[in-house]
Amino acid sequence: MVTIAVDAMGGDYAPKNVVEGAIQALQETSGRFKIILTGQKEKVQPILDEHDIQFLPLEFVDTPQVIEMHESASSAVKSKQNSSMVRGLMLCKEKKADAFVSAGNTGAQMAASLLVLGRLDKVMRPTIGAYFPSVSEVTMVYDIGANIDCKPEHLVQFAEMASIYLLYAGQVKNPKVGLLNVGSEETKGTEVLKQTYQMLISAHEKGKLNFVGNIEGGDILFSKVNIVLCDGLNGNMLLKFGESMPHFLGGLFKSVVGKLVKEQKINPESAEVVGKAFKGMFASFDDERFGGVPLLGVNGVSIIGHGRSSATAIKNMIYRAEEMIEQQVNAHIAEVLADS
Amino acid sequence: MVTIAVDAMGGDYAPKNVVEGAIQALQETSGRFKIILTGQKEKVQPILDEHDIQFLPLEFVDTPQVIEMHESASSAVKSKQNSSMVRGLMLCKEKKADAFVSAGNTGAQMAASLLVLGRLDKVMRPTIGAYFPSVSEVTMVYDIGANIDCKPEHLVQFAEMASIYLLYAGQVKNPKVGLLNVGSEETKGTEVLKQTYQMLISAHEKGKLNFVGNIEGGDILFSKVNIVLCDGLNGNMLLKFGESMPHFLGGLFKSVVGKLVKEQKINPESAEVVGKAFKGMFASFDDERFGGVPLLGVNGVSIIGHGRSSATAIKNMIYRAEEMIEQQVNAHIAEVLADS
Repeated sequence: MVTIAVDAMGGDYAPKNVVEGAIQALQETSGRFKIILTGQKEKVQPILDEHDIQFLPLEFVDTPQVIEMHESASSAVKSKQNSSMVRGLMLCKEKKADAFVSAGNTGAQMAASLLVLGRLDKVMRPTIGAYFPSVSEVTMVYDIGANIDCKPEHLVQFAEMASIYLLYAGQVKNPKVGLLNVGSEETKGTEVLKQTYQMLISAHEKGKLNFVGNIEGGDILFSKVNIVLCDGLNGNMLLKFGESMPHFLGGLFKSVVGKLVKEQKINPESAEVVGKAFKGMFASFDDERFGGVPLLGVNGVSIIGHGRSSATAIKNMIYRAEEMIEQQVNAHIAEVLADS
Repeated sequence: MVTIAVDAMGGDYAPKNVVEGAIQALQETSGRFKIILTGQKEKVQPILDEHDIQFLPLEFVDTPQVIEMHESASSAVKSKQNSSMVRGLMLCKEKKADAFVSAGNTGAQMAASLLVLGRLDKVMRPTIGAYFPSVSEVTMVYDIGANIDCKPEHLVQFAEMASIYLLYAGQVKNPKVGLLNVGSEETKGTEVLKQTYQMLISAHEKGKLNFVGNIEGGDILFSKVNIVLCDGLNGNMLLKFGESMPHFLGGLFKSVVGKLVKEQKINPESAEVVGKAFKGMFASFDDERFGGVPLLGVNGVSIIGHGRSSATAIKNMIYRAEEMIEQQVNAHIAEVLADS
């Protein structure tokens, strides 16, 4: 049976949301997989005690140390071997678990995953992406911060790995890759982007991915591609800028609608209905429905979630982990990278 | 009297919007400045003939050649000396005009401005920024595409020039500069960003600008700073991503409200009122109220506008040009850069 290690201490609402998400996943799937929670006993046990978990395939491992959100990633990993995060990854390394899931310190999780699990053969650098809203199909941006300074060969490998991920775990047929640039012509952009363009053409010709050309910032939301390829500096800025939009617009919209009510142009009931609908619009901006994303390229499965993860997000992250295992995404990545 | 050369052929709705914007500016200001329109006579004259311009300080110069939107910038500048753009800039060079305004091909305008006007003393690279929406004060992003690959010294100079622009032309007291990065700590980012951070600290200590530290993508809309500093690759992607947001959200909102009407949760009248208010929300995203931005660092005044400029946008661009001259922005830039 597949076993998934879950970091009970990871996230702004841990361990409550994590424990509840894990229990929900087990209840929904009636024992399709087993979960090992890692965390501080005094914090996790009281929450476990609130639930009827007697017949669930749920194990708990006490890890007294905690990696804090502000801690330097690499040093924390070395000095906190008995933390929920490092211990969870060690369970994977020791083959006691098949995957690890956390909504904790992202930097620490990337560093710890790389250190404990190592890289898949031929992988230069592991990468992490994010789902972006779009008019129809799935759109992900790679990389969103794991690699802020990238060479062309790194970017091409990110695109290859992301393509495999979306094909097998995301069920996207022949995912389209676009290189984020300042114009569509192949002569546009920095030297790195020009070289990347040529290498993507060559990877496309070898059948390793489906490159459709350069795209611009204005194309992201309109589903021209499934994978928006850029370095982690660009990706991180775009992601955080985009994530700030609902809050910013929500404030604007509230004051605009408030004014309409005050001027008796609409009634308060309509204002409330419209306000709720407005909020609902941004549901597609939320990563809750996906839960998290794998750190692609490590020799194992490490799913990274948002700090603010809800129980539903945690549950969905666990499903992402299961998908990575069942669909053998890593084996497919190794296969594609083997002859590159 | 101040004389402003205006490219009648520049923009998606040229020459109509341009001619009308220029006439509006002259009418509003009752001859505070003079305008020289450059453009193709057979296209511009009919529009001039529609207006009563007899007593306006408006001159027209026939320039038969046109630089198209798709043309390669640098070659167009050399081969099309008798185009509205090159001719308008030449009028500045020959001191027959004090400023040039265009909503035409941005790449061509940047190249032509640099070629014809040259750089201000000590300026390494001219830069262009864009207004971004924000919760309260003015926020501009520099650079948004003039310089896609930047060294730290370039970025610092952009910040110095943008600070002078906002101080004198924008009336922003002590404009705050933030370096766009992946985290607030000074150790974050690429080598270029780390070095830029240190150079900004030093420029701040010398009183050349007001550096408040690193900011992240999520801070842009929330007015933490007046100048968001980044290379033109990042800035261009952010700008185009942001500009695509109203259209994307407008589509979402329309379908959400349509559903509410269909389900009889709100009445069609309220839906219409709310729809209009929603559109109005994005007025702050529109560059019409500013019109355009100067290419900072050239030895003259060249105001660059959006291709889709309305007559109002053109009028406001002309006011931006006047501001640049009246406030002697270039002299202040030269002063700040003199001892660097």
